[in-house]
Amino acid sequence: MNADTGLLSLVWPGTGMDTLLADEAWVEAMLSVEVALARTQARLGVVPASAVGPIAAAAEAVRVDVADLAVRARGSGNPVVELVRELTAAVAERDEQAAEYVHRGGTSQDILDSATMLLATRALARTDADLARVADALARLADEHRHTPMAARTLTQHAVPTTFGLKAAGWLALVLDAVERVRDTRLPVQLGGAGGTLAAYLEYARTAGVAPEGHAAALTEGVAAELGLHVPAAPWHTRRTPVTDLGWVAVTVTGALGKLAVDVLGATRTEVGEVAEPSGAGSGVSSAMPQKRNPVLAALLVSAARQAPAYAAMLAQSMLAEDERSAGGWQSEWQPLRETLRLAGGAAHTAAELVEGLRVFPGRLRENLAAGGGTIVSERLNVVLAPVLGKAAAKKLLGEVAARAASGEGGFADLLRRELRDVDDLDALLDPAGYLGAADELVDRVLARRTAVLG
Amino acid sequence: MNADTGLLSLVWPGTGMDTLLADEAWVEAMLSVEVALARTQARLGVVPASAVGPIAAAAEAVRVDVADLAVRARGSGNPVVELVRELTAAVAERDEQAAEYVHRGGTSQDILDSATMLLATRALARTDADLARVADALARLADEHRHTPMAARTLTQHAVPTTFGLKAAGWLALVLDAVERVRDTRLPVQLGGAGGTLAAYLEYARTAGVAPEGHAAALTEGVAAELGLHVPAAPWHTRRTPVTDLGWVAVTVTGALGKLAVDVLGATRTEVGEVAEPSGAGSGVSSAMPQKRNPVLAALLVSAARQAPAYAAMLAQSMLAEDERSAGGWQSEWQPLRETLRLAGGAAHTAAELVEGLRVFPGRLRENLAAGGGTIVSERLNVVLAPVLGKAAAKKLLGEVAARAASGEGGFADLLRRELRDVDDLDALLDPAGYLGAADELVDRVLARRTAVLG
Amino acid sequence: MNADTGLLSLVWPGTGMDTLLADEAWVEAMLSVEVALARTQARLGVVPASAVGPIAAAAEAVRVDVADLAVRARGSGNPVVELVRELTAAVAERDEQAAEYVHRGGTSQDILDSATMLLATRALARTDADLARVADALARLADEHRHTPMAARTLTQHAVPTTFGLKAAGWLALVLDAVERVRDTRLPVQLGGAGGTLAAYLEYARTAGVAPEGHAAALTEGVAAELGLHVPAAPWHTRRTPVTDLGWVAVTVTGALGKLAVDVLGATRTEVGEVAEPSGAGSGVSSAMPQKRNPVLAALLVSAARQAPAYAAMLAQSMLAEDERSAGGWQSEWQPLRETLRLAGGAAHTAAELVEGLRVFPGRLRENLAAGGGTIVSERLNVVLAPVLGKAAAKKLLGEVAARAASGEGGFADLLRRELRDVDDLDALLDPAGYLGAADELVDRVLARRTAVLG
Amino acid sequence: MNADTGLLSLVWPGTGMDTLLADEAWVEAMLSVEVALARTQARLGVVPASAVGPIAAAAEAVRVDVADLAVRARGSGNPVVELVRELTAAVAERDEQAAEYVHRGGTSQDILDSATMLLATRALARTDADLARVADALARLADEHRHTPMAARTLTQHAVPTTFGLKAAGWLALVLDAVERVRDTRLPVQLGGAGGTLAAYLEYARTAGVAPEGHAAALTEGVAAELGLHVPAAPWHTRRTPVTDLGWVAVTVTGALGKLAVDVLGATRTEVGEVAEPSGAGSGVSSAMPQKRNPVLAALLVSAARQAPAYAAMLAQSMLAEDERSAGGWQSEWQPLRETLRLAGGAAHTAAELVEGLRVFPGRLRENLAAGGGTIVSERLNVVLAPVLGKAAAKKLLGEVAARAASGEGGFADLLRRELRDVDDLDALLDPAGYLGAADELVDRVLARRTAVLG
Repeated sequence: MNADTGLLSLVWPGTGMDTLLADEAWVEAMLSVEVALARTQARLGVVPASAVGPIAAAAEAVRVDVADLAVRARGSGNPVVELVRELTAAVAERDEQAAEYVHRGGTSQDILDSATMLLATRALARTDADLARVADALARLADEHRHTPMAARTLTQHAVPTTFGLKAAGWLALVLDAVERVRDTRLPVQLGGAGGTLAAYLEYARTAGVAPEGHAAALTEGVAAELGLHVPAAPWHTRRTPVTDLGWVAVTVTGALGKLAVDVLGATRTEVGEVAEPSGAGSGVSSAMPQKRNPVLAALLVSAARQAPAYAAMLAQSMLAEDERSAGGWQSEWQPLRETLRLAGGAAHTAAELVEGLRVFPGRLRENLAAGGGTIVSERLNVVLAPVLGKAAAKKLLGEVAARAASGEGGFADLLRRELRDVDDLDALLDPAGYLGAADELVDRVLARRTAVLG
Repeated sequence: MNADTGLLSLVWPGTGMDTLLADEAWVEAMLSVEVALARTQARLGVVPASAVGPIAAAAEAVRVDVADLAVRARGSGNPVVELVRELTAAVAERDEQAAEYVHRGGTSQDILDSATMLLATRALARTDADLARVADALARLADEHRHTPMAARTLTQHAVPTTFGLKAAGWLALVLDAVERVRDTRLPVQLGGAGGTLAAYLEYARTAGVAPEGHAAALTEGVAAELGLHVPAAPWHTRRTPVTDLGWVAVTVTGALGKLAVDVLGATRTEVGEVAEPSGAGSGVSSAMPQKRNPVLAALLVSAARQAPAYAAMLAQSMLAEDERSAGGWQSEWQPLRETLRLAGGAAHTAAELVEGLRVFPGRLRENLAAGGGTIVSERLNVVLAPVLGKAAAKKLLGEVAARAASGEGGFADLLRRELRDVDDLDALLDPAGYLGAADELVDRVLARRTAVLG
Repeated sequence: MNADTGLLSLVWPGTGMDTLLADEAWVEAMLSVEVALARTQARLGVVPASAVGPIAAAAEAVRVDVADLAVRARGSGNPVVELVRELTAAVAERDEQAAEYVHRGGTSQDILDSATMLLATRALARTDADLARVADALARLADEHRHTPMAARTLTQHAVPTTFGLKAAGWLALVLDAVERVRDTRLPVQLGGAGGTLAAYLEYARTAGVAPEGHAAALTEGVAAELGLHVPAAPWHTRRTPVTDLGWVAVTVTGALGKLAVDVLGATRTEVGEVAEPSGAGSGVSSAMPQKRNPVLAALLVSAARQAPAYAAMLAQSMLAEDERSAGGWQSEWQPLRETLRLAGGAAHTAAELVEGLRVFPGRLRENLAAGGGTIVSERLNVVLAPVLGKAAAKKLLGEVAARAASGEGGFADLLRRELRDVDDLDALLDPAGYLGAADELVDRVLARRTAVLG
Repeated sequence: MNADTGLLSLVWPGTGMDTLLADEAWVEAMLSVEVALARTQARLGVVPASAVGPIAAAAEAVRVDVADLAVRARGSGNPVVELVRELTAAVAERDEQAAEYVHRGGTSQDILDSATMLLATRALARTDADLARVADALARLADEHRHTPMAARTLTQHAVPTTFGLKAAGWLALVLDAVERVRDTRLPVQLGGAGGTLAAYLEYARTAGVAPEGHAAALTEGVAAELGLHVPAAPWHTRRTPVTDLGWVAVTVTGALGKLAVDVLGATRTEVGEVAEPSGAGSGVSSAMPQKRNPVLAALLVSAARQAPAYAAMLAQSMLAEDERSAGGWQSEWQPLRETLRLAGGAAHTAAELVEGLRVFPGRLRENLAAGGGTIVSERLNVVLAPVLGKAAAKKLLGEVAARAASGEGGFADLLRRELRDVDDLDALLDPAGYLGAADELVDRVLARRTAVLG
């Protein structure tokens, strides 16, 4: 067997995305669409009720060699034609008559698109559940560390104090953005027939004595209900908004978690050491260096976040679909869509592992915050001193003292005290924990939003 | 002056996007944010009411050399520092005292991000208006041509009949997708201060005797209201969902119109000739070939649709923003965001020009439909003959007759009549206009959705 | 088994790329690198010669469950650690002593990067062979049809005459571009040890009594020679030019073939009908429409060409690799690189199928050329009439006559003859076959280039 | 005036790329192509020698309002038609007769493509010069710091020792990769006429009594020589390899410099502090925090490196160009190509500023290296102890001691000494400067390669 099992995309093996989105899953989903179609047509009187059982049973039982199917599928440019052949044969073994009713009026794109939407729905549901775990863990961190001060950093440099709680709340805010976009996604069934008019479906209805008026809507709604999909205003064979949307949703998931991951990586650097990934048998082990504990989960999250935007671009490009079925446009979205969903789902699962076990070191946060000797509250000193010394003079003084401290002349705070003997509350002003702005209120706002989104 | 004026991106010059999104517009928007900040701080008692007038007047009057500003902005990595310097000087000329209150508590990213959201809001509003024009024109075409039969094509080949009305309705459906996404976009104000805690804003409030509790929220809401922007749960300096969303919205706009354009290009091909772009002085003129009328508007739409997904990918990549301000991540989104908005807005305007004047040639639609000699209803014949001849035999017969017709033995319909002397209603079955499926109902559904979306 | 076998990326199943680039192939290649390392170290005296046999035998014999390996590999963030564990155990079963010498001094990235370059080399060789087939077939077409006139089209409209031979030569020129880039690719071995200094390799040499001077170069050259790879100036753990180059090479392959494919699709349209894909059992069959022969090979080529640029962008993004090993950057390139190579290799194979069997219909080419009634030589008439009538007057006349012809007043040639009774050689001027420019010479130039490149 | 002057893309204003690649530069380059064409045609006897002077003079003198030209260019889908109109008028003012010979036989794409290649050639030359400056500065750093030890880091963690010299040599190796690709770029003139056959050029030759045989080659070679461009085997209107290549070249430039920049950013972090950007008036100043010196040049380099791959993808997508001139494909590459060249050229200039003034702090490098208390040579200890204690036991011991040190029980070296009283040379083994592998040799190899590439 020659296959991809995720060996080169470690963010998703073992996260559920491997089984949910394998070739075998696509075959099973396509067969489910055929069964849903037959079942709905039976209910509407277009095919005999007796055909449904054999079709459903055959769909359940048929064993497809996916690698072989892939090669044969090249002949028609999609996997449906050959799969229908196999299904029809399997039905015929059970019931010759029923085999006539397989794929009745169907076109390949109806089956494959509907199957893809079905699988995407499942993948998003799993992703959503993992994102909820991530959100729970982050909410705990945000609340627990709402009074743990640390350095906020901008353009790599210590800027002003913040709290680890607000940091976690910031990650949570992004995860909630992702959750909202996952939950707002409405994936439609595809049912258009050969040219998007549903003509064959209606012709079969007519020949079966069913009035064509309203049949298109009834059939679409029926199949959608069977599959748990939404009903579109019209077939979307070459109107690929749902596919474009999925890329964007995936990007918000991997991007949100990727932001979290780059922060974890930054905080994990040997010189920083403020957080560490969960320890566990084998996690982050290096083959050569016994002392190392590598932040591998964060690395996998970054790997997903770096790939997803380009996949989303491929999917968005699929909107350039000519005529009533695109030659190449359609085919170019299948694999990118699968990989995009895998990256998002795998990232959500991986992030849950990471944040549920994230180790935070408040001591190190404090040490790093103090390392600048008080320069981190320069902004505050600036605000307070400006009215006293004048805006320009205050800024100049603080810059000079910072430079002298940086050149080793002494601690910033000590040098400043010497310059500002008259300022009474200088010690209080120099305390980072006293200059946290609205950090606490912002944590509350984000936690409130979490409750609003996730209950 | 050395500049870009759109000479290499012809989809947007003259569409309004040039003025709306020029460097000068950014300067003006950044100044508007500074004024909105001062005005709100005055209302909240943080700065004296007397400072607002001079700041607003100076912001109105200051003349900025944008090219020079761009060069100087390299020193701080963003254009705000130098712009604030210019504004402050201009205020000081009017009122020394008021100059102390410029950019009070502000950080560069607050100003630039808010300005960008302001401009994006305006660009989307203009885009929305042009999309509504496109939707109106398409609705007219859909209704007018709901009974105009034409060939549906899949993988470049005639498939089954459809109507030009349904074709236009399909384009309309995509445009409505884009409109919905444009209208659902909620762009937030940015207000976080140096490290996302709003600490300096609060410190200034404190020194002015204003209670810090709730001040962050009040300030944010105030500035948002001044600018017509939304209030975020927390600052989003390194949580770039709004930027990612804008890329996706732009992609749905350019993709929807790009689909329309590839169809127009296909239908314009010399051999097809079913539609033509509006004729007008100079439109589509070739420098060398007097006979040509090039579909240039459609070409420009395609050019936008080909670029936008990659821009959206750049914007999505910006979610990977480390710490409390990214070094490089932030800077990498400004130009792509501008270009993306321009492409979307320019495309909407260009599409309005195109569809409002699109010329449709029903005669040519009919001729092309008839060119296959009836093969276009093979699917229908298959449905009807299958119960008579058996599924396999029917398909085989139709395939053979089609092959004989293709090899020049005779017309498909004639050859078929010879084979099927017993089938009474063969002529009716062979009429493309009788095999339009639910085309008419689908047109109605899309038109109803338009009313729901656009009123 | 849950896997990808290409069911959603039909351009490569069955083309050789499936086996060449499967997870199993990666495992086999990584084991080959370990053997090459041991063999070279034995030759240089760092490990005992007796260890090589058991290591090579175990590498040959070990059976790895790739799906399981993928899940376990998440613990260390790459597949090498766990694979070395399996290999070491398999060696130990044969020879306890030899097991000590597995992966001696090695780091995961040395193994995986070298394995990847090995597989890329093989994939490019296969791609090159298929491109040579494509070039051969195109050269035949170019030569055979060097006097077959047809319409050149610009912006969808008939422009001037050209020949099908030049069309094929143009495709060939692009394929030669791709061949040159494939052949110029120099893929380096990776050998840097834990931090890019080869320190452990040298330390093992030292402890084995081998002088460290020059050992790094000797080891690198030795392993490179074993694997057929090139020797880099220095390790490239975070200098990813080779990976970026591969993306670009793949893009030139898929782009060259994609251009060919869009032209084939255009020429295959029902109304144009100038070429057809090779007919064969099952090729291009539609599930519902017996008359259709879909250009599925061209569609698959387009699908590859639409995806590859975004993959190349992912690979180029990998240059942003921090430190001496990137956390996430490295992991983000593995799957995109595999898919990119597959798309290129699959496209080359598919294109060979397509062009070797491409059917060209000169009759249809002639009919389409004549369809404009002579307007296609307007440019020539313009050149000839300008000195007679004046530049502006000539252009105006030709434009008016073309417009009158288009409005149905008569044939362009006839109308023109009435206007230009004095022009003697008008019939000769109106013959498209007389206005082919340098088409024949250009065909020769491209054929000569083919000989220069391919022999 | 509403324009882009780089305010939102700070990597290039003031670097020369602003003037080199402005709209005005494009106009000037297109006019240069027209002059080169006229001059060559005169030399070949197709146009009178007397026409060249007025055409060249008018091209020099004509003043074009680029913003207005951009709007008017929408009518024909490219800027050439209107520009030729202006040029022709300006020539006519000088010499009515000469005006007949402007753009003789030309097609818009010949002019714009050749102009673009001309500008790209200039931009690459400037980029090459700046890269050479970067390479010089890096070579100096590599040589100067070849014995300055520092920590190599992998996945954010200290791994083994390396030298700052090797770090700089690594950056240099990448810059040399980029230089090679810049210098290997061969940009072709475009000369194909309306349909790629050069028919009108030949027709004009014929009417002027010049033999058409060989004229296409002579004309192409002549114009190429005038412009300093290469001669292609055939016109490449829809064979866009040169454009795709430029994207890839730009990506290797921005990627090489982006790698350097992410390392500088990592080393600049407050806790790491190993390097700093050049200090200078205003560099890296924060608006609010007086103590900060932001690494703004590195941030700008990262901004370029993050954008370029997606631009390269847009350019590669342009290979999908149908027929003899693409409707939309061609238009979609102009602005991305300009921006890509700007990013690369701006990045090279910015990197020269950065590395020529980069401040390195050897003291801080040493402190950070020592911070792990010796754990950084664990790999070496492992190698040495494995034969003594057994491979597994050695690894276990080192892991445990590292863990005990991490938990605060004592220094790694001290704890280890207690465990290994019998190992004599433990102090030597623990010295990072004694475990630098082949760092010095690798520096030499890269410096030698620099000499080979740059002389």
